[in-house]
Amino acid sequence: MKSFLSSRLSSLTPYVPGEQPKQAVIVKLNTNESPFPPSKKAINFGKKALKTTRLYCDIECTALKKEFAKRYGVEENQLLFTNGSDEILYYAFNAFCDEKVGAVFPDITYGFYKVFANLNGIRYKEIPLKEDLSVDIKDYYSANATVFIANPNAPTGKYLSVSDIEKIVKENPNNVVVIDEAYIDFGGESAVKLIKEYNNLLVTQTFSKSRSMAGARLGVGIANQKLIENLKLIKFSTNPYNVNAVTQASGLGSLKDEKYFKNNCKTIIENREELISFLESLGFYCTKSCANFVFCKTDKISGEKLQGLLRERGILVRHFKLPRISEYLRITVGSKKQIKILEKNITEIMESIV
Amino acid sequence: MKSFLSSRLSSLTPYVPGEQPKQAVIVKLNTNESPFPPSKKAINFGKKALKTTRLYCDIECTALKKEFAKRYGVEENQLLFTNGSDEILYYAFNAFCDEKVGAVFPDITYGFYKVFANLNGIRYKEIPLKEDLSVDIKDYYSANATVFIANPNAPTGKYLSVSDIEKIVKENPNNVVVIDEAYIDFGGESAVKLIKEYNNLLVTQTFSKSRSMAGARLGVGIANQKLIENLKLIKFSTNPYNVNAVTQASGLGSLKDEKYFKNNCKTIIENREELISFLESLGFYCTKSCANFVFCKTDKISGEKLQGLLRERGILVRHFKLPRISEYLRITVGSKKQIKILEKNITEIMESIV
Repeated sequence: MKSFLSSRLSSLTPYVPGEQPKQAVIVKLNTNESPFPPSKKAINFGKKALKTTRLYCDIECTALKKEFAKRYGVEENQLLFTNGSDEILYYAFNAFCDEKVGAVFPDITYGFYKVFANLNGIRYKEIPLKEDLSVDIKDYYSANATVFIANPNAPTGKYLSVSDIEKIVKENPNNVVVIDEAYIDFGGESAVKLIKEYNNLLVTQTFSKSRSMAGARLGVGIANQKLIENLKLIKFSTNPYNVNAVTQASGLGSLKDEKYFKNNCKTIIENREELISFLESLGFYCTKSCANFVFCKTDKISGEKLQGLLRERGILVRHFKLPRISEYLRITVGSKKQIKILEKNITEIMESIV
Repeated sequence: MKSFLSSRLSSLTPYVPGEQPKQAVIVKLNTNESPFPPSKKAINFGKKALKTTRLYCDIECTALKKEFAKRYGVEENQLLFTNGSDEILYYAFNAFCDEKVGAVFPDITYGFYKVFANLNGIRYKEIPLKEDLSVDIKDYYSANATVFIANPNAPTGKYLSVSDIEKIVKENPNNVVVIDEAYIDFGGESAVKLIKEYNNLLVTQTFSKSRSMAGARLGVGIANQKLIENLKLIKFSTNPYNVNAVTQASGLGSLKDEKYFKNNCKTIIENREELISFLESLGFYCTKSCANFVFCKTDKISGEKLQGLLRERGILVRHFKLPRISEYLRITVGSKKQIKILEKNITEIMESIV
């Protein structure tokens, strides 16, 4: 059968999202979702907006922008909301990369960067993480390309300080540096405060993890006005109404409930440290994660095997069949109850293989 | 100040959506929205889904797909849901056009086609509508490019029969023909039934207009499985979670309330014919619209002027400053009450200029 697909896409490999299981699952710790429901305000604001959808949504996300600007100490014209932070990252690849300007990012990082680059025919270089899976910031000086760094990085959970990020931004005055802060709320300090000083810094964040809104799709880009205008050009040339009315309202509700948000982040951090202690007590090695997941391995059983055994017990965690990290598992930090179940099952599995 | 924007985008002109007013508006008839609220089922299904957004949404839109397939007599693998039908159109430009395969569409049509083409550096040819603003189907035979036709067309409202569409599809066996059916539910017959026979036909529809869900963002592409797989490659390389959980649920609710949907479409058709009769009685010329809008002009006052005078009275309608149609106004067909207010105001304006 004839193919109508553009030949430039014939070898494109799309992103593979973590499994959303259809069978009964006892504990789902494979896609870094929050164990907590969205804020009640997010739900109630969303409910009201559901009645308004006969009208197009506000392409400027005015109310959301106002509230976010106030809370995060930035100007409204320094913000662009998108349909998840995947979309703002996609815009950045579109706006700031082309045949001449390529992209650089770590060899081990969010798997989507490579896909965005391939889709748009953008040259990219994957810079190996150090042996301990941390970013060597000097590798990104004078990159002569648009820089993409997830901070904390995924799936390692490792975090660069704001002063390290600043060095990378400073050393690339002629290129945009994109800091993907999907996991910043779990113990890291945001680089947002640098956008006033640097016109080449784009910070992206998401409501998916720390605000329990993965299924609502809300991301945001934060940068100086000029970069935001560039990104808006992509938005208004692809999908101006990209953030629907209900999600805008829910996002606003979430922002108005800072106490709930902060409490949830605090609990996740506590649970993470508890899980790391437990795993270390069983002889696992864990990276120093600043995210809502733990990245761990053990000599006693392969990552793939352990994932399979947990799966048989209705517990989902993520394994990547990738060079350098194939021994690791990425385990989302769930609720205290979920972690207890996980720990019980890992204990049983480890005992059974001794 | 240095610009980081890719030079290939330096002359890109984005799409300009119809105004979403911030001031008090009595009657808003400028963006082809429905005057009716979404179905109660759409609202109630959405409410339930709001509580689930801590989890990622279903990337396959399984429940929605199942219901749509059943109602529209197609297979589930012949469907792809997107964040509004703008997104499925954007995917089509990405998947089926490139440096070698350009695009053709009418000179007067949905303004976004040109923007999608420009963003992706795709050659396109705008084929002039006939003098009466109708599509000459022979102009699209052997197009040697991907064909985009809105049917009914916007902003003319003019409709091509399924047999005319079939001729275009048949005469382009080596290219994809995209039929954008955003307005099909207001009196036209869908070309969906042709997808079984033709592997080069993509039909796109939206929940924005006839299902009162413009602010919820839900579109769908309908084609043979191979084309859908091609489009999915773009989806999974840009934004796999593009349709959020609440919109998926609302869409399902809407599909389960066919009576409400059909009644609303019937009312819009009645109101359209009433509005056309009224305008003709004042000496306006109206195209034979099959959409939820009327496209009209008069010798007595320019389109731009009339738009301005209506605006002063709190009534929004759409005017396009474009060659060949600058004399026209596009007026969304609203509720009976909205139309009465519009008619009263147009009458007063026309009397005042005699």
